[in-house]
Amino acid sequence: MKELLAAARGEVPADLVFKNGKVFDVFNGTLVEATVAVAGGRILGYGDYEGKTEVDLAGRILCPGFIDSHVHIESSMVTVGEFARMVIPLGTTTVFADPHEIANVAGVEGIEFMLEEGKKFPWNFFLMVPSCVPASPFEAGGAVLTSETLKPLAEREDLFGLGEMMNYPGVISGDDETWRKLELFRERFRDGHAPQVVGKELNAYLLGGIGADHEAVSAGEALEKIRAGIYLMIREGSAARNLNDLLKAVTAQNFHRFLFATDDRHPEDLLEEGHINFLIKRAVAAGCPPETALRMATINAATCFGLRDLGAIALGRRADLLVIDDLNSLTVHEVYKDGVLVAEDGESLFPVCPPAKGKMGDTVKIKAVKEEDFHLPAGNLFRIIRLLPGQIV
Amino acid sequence: MKELLAAARGEVPADLVFKNGKVFDVFNGTLVEATVAVAGGRILGYGDYEGKTEVDLAGRILCPGFIDSHVHIESSMVTVGEFARMVIPLGTTTVFADPHEIANVAGVEGIEFMLEEGKKFPWNFFLMVPSCVPASPFEAGGAVLTSETLKPLAEREDLFGLGEMMNYPGVISGDDETWRKLELFRERFRDGHAPQVVGKELNAYLLGGIGADHEAVSAGEALEKIRAGIYLMIREGSAARNLNDLLKAVTAQNFHRFLFATDDRHPEDLLEEGHINFLIKRAVAAGCPPETALRMATINAATCFGLRDLGAIALGRRADLLVIDDLNSLTVHEVYKDGVLVAEDGESLFPVCPPAKGKMGDTVKIKAVKEEDFHLPAGNLFRIIRLLPGQIV
Repeated sequence: MKELLAAARGEVPADLVFKNGKVFDVFNGTLVEATVAVAGGRILGYGDYEGKTEVDLAGRILCPGFIDSHVHIESSMVTVGEFARMVIPLGTTTVFADPHEIANVAGVEGIEFMLEEGKKFPWNFFLMVPSCVPASPFEAGGAVLTSETLKPLAEREDLFGLGEMMNYPGVISGDDETWRKLELFRERFRDGHAPQVVGKELNAYLLGGIGADHEAVSAGEALEKIRAGIYLMIREGSAARNLNDLLKAVTAQNFHRFLFATDDRHPEDLLEEGHINFLIKRAVAAGCPPETALRMATINAATCFGLRDLGAIALGRRADLLVIDDLNSLTVHEVYKDGVLVAEDGESLFPVCPPAKGKMGDTVKIKAVKEEDFHLPAGNLFRIIRLLPGQIV
Repeated sequence: MKELLAAARGEVPADLVFKNGKVFDVFNGTLVEATVAVAGGRILGYGDYEGKTEVDLAGRILCPGFIDSHVHIESSMVTVGEFARMVIPLGTTTVFADPHEIANVAGVEGIEFMLEEGKKFPWNFFLMVPSCVPASPFEAGGAVLTSETLKPLAEREDLFGLGEMMNYPGVISGDDETWRKLELFRERFRDGHAPQVVGKELNAYLLGGIGADHEAVSAGEALEKIRAGIYLMIREGSAARNLNDLLKAVTAQNFHRFLFATDDRHPEDLLEEGHINFLIKRAVAAGCPPETALRMATINAATCFGLRDLGAIALGRRADLLVIDDLNSLTVHEVYKDGVLVAEDGESLFPVCPPAKGKMGDTVKIKAVKEEDFHLPAGNLFRIIRLLPGQIV
């Protein structure tokens, strides 16, 4: 601490200093011309500091790294490493990953696999414990996670909280097994999933200690959920595209209650559109002030999850920093994680090796599909399901 | 939980229901026409509920109880009970009290006395552990609280955190004893006191894990402290009146980082002007939107201190509720604590007995003061101290 204090007082050089640019101050919501110092991987503060390494921002903007508040990495259809290699250069330095797809097949072993992989890369990798495996009684992916199975997971420091509680009918009706899971995570973050759950049912659902929801599809639903005290994740995935509708709920009075989540994004959308950087750009294009959109991607998420070391360029927070050109085009030139350069001009600077062979292999167990499997018995009436473009409900 | 769930679903009546009025939604920053239900002393939610007891708001407004983020009750010059009897009917349902004045004289026994008294009344009484007793080496009030003395206090659940760290030179210079105190409270809230500490010195000071400050006197100082990541308490005491100057720093972008504190208010000001209700009114009179001022007095403070059960009319939070007439006159008609009526039309409905005789008695030890004690030796030059009206620096 004495060393840090000496660096803060400016008596010894900081590890890293960013000069000659603007800094996005998430608390006041403004850009300030300032020099920022980093020591020990953390922000030391604003001030006229000198550094062992100095970065000339040349008028560019320093901004906190982006946070994806809810993502199933499995939906990217690539390994965790390839996902990291795609999204970190786009400015994502933190993900809250819910491995419920892999857990549906491989159970706890799948969760452990994701954790092991996630820890290899330069980001903050927060892994949630899937609450509903299988997702419904109609599924037979292979694994079942009971409250007994979850018990040891709820006590682990390397897992963050309870993943989206999709069994909202079970929460609302007071199903014992569902509530045992919620109780296990009483002291941890419990994520929500409550499509079109409003009114008294919303109140009953939220008694489960739910902290956020990413399933709202209209501004009215969003405002009601915010009023009830939870944070609202604006989701823009590949199938579910709710951003434009939900932005209508964002006001100068409540902007600090919104976060961004991708939920499920396919690889072509990650490559062509982007990740959280795309959600910010899309929000700005829809009329959201960039200062607001950037905060949904940074400090709002950190606050929602109670993480005081993320989401801001402020003393003591992790030096997860982006150098961007301006608030509108939002091109990410450099990405720093804990004060170390990890991506530059769209290219990752860290190694990505494929997971060890044999891990999670041989899990697809299906017989060959033939044309006649799709035949329907003649003469009967059948219900059909219609798809709504941009929605998953 | 099954009972609460049934109440949330509306199948059994709630304990208490407020009807026919407007509700201040601190998250969206708006008034909504809604019915609010309370069960088990906590908010059950918004919705068309029925209650064992029903309150007809008759168009009035339901608002969360007010929070004083930093107060020395000793400065009211009355007992804790008399203070409670003054401020609870004015809408204050939560205080963060720093007993450093009584501790200056009576040490840990003084802290215990304040805690014992504070727990008797219907409010949330959070007691801080004074960090600097005596306040400076020039004082000889009687007690000295060393880091050794504070150690057992730092582990107690009935004390909230470390009181204002006034020894900012000690923090900045790295004084061992000062840092031992800060380290003891590493996992707790550590309150600040940093008059005109800015720039590199502010960074060094905040390395101590400080969460808020109430000593800013100008908008520029306030903005810098907010940028550094701490919460800013707008203080309007009896001597120190900083509200009008600090309001200039409040914007639509940063309003959620400001709280209200009275620090030191004398009894005549409490009686004639009021308590936190007065700060809100004064802010509104100075042009601050009432929705903003009310949030400084409620949810902003709860968020700063990490208390998810206070500051909002939202599910699971304590039913600390005020019935007020309108957002401008802000007359408090009824005060509920945990769903129980505790004050009505300015009168408290709870008993206040004086503390047991002999407690904290006989502590004034001073010889009679004579005129010649004020004489100065002739022929010398003396420095004098000038008072700035409305300031204490």
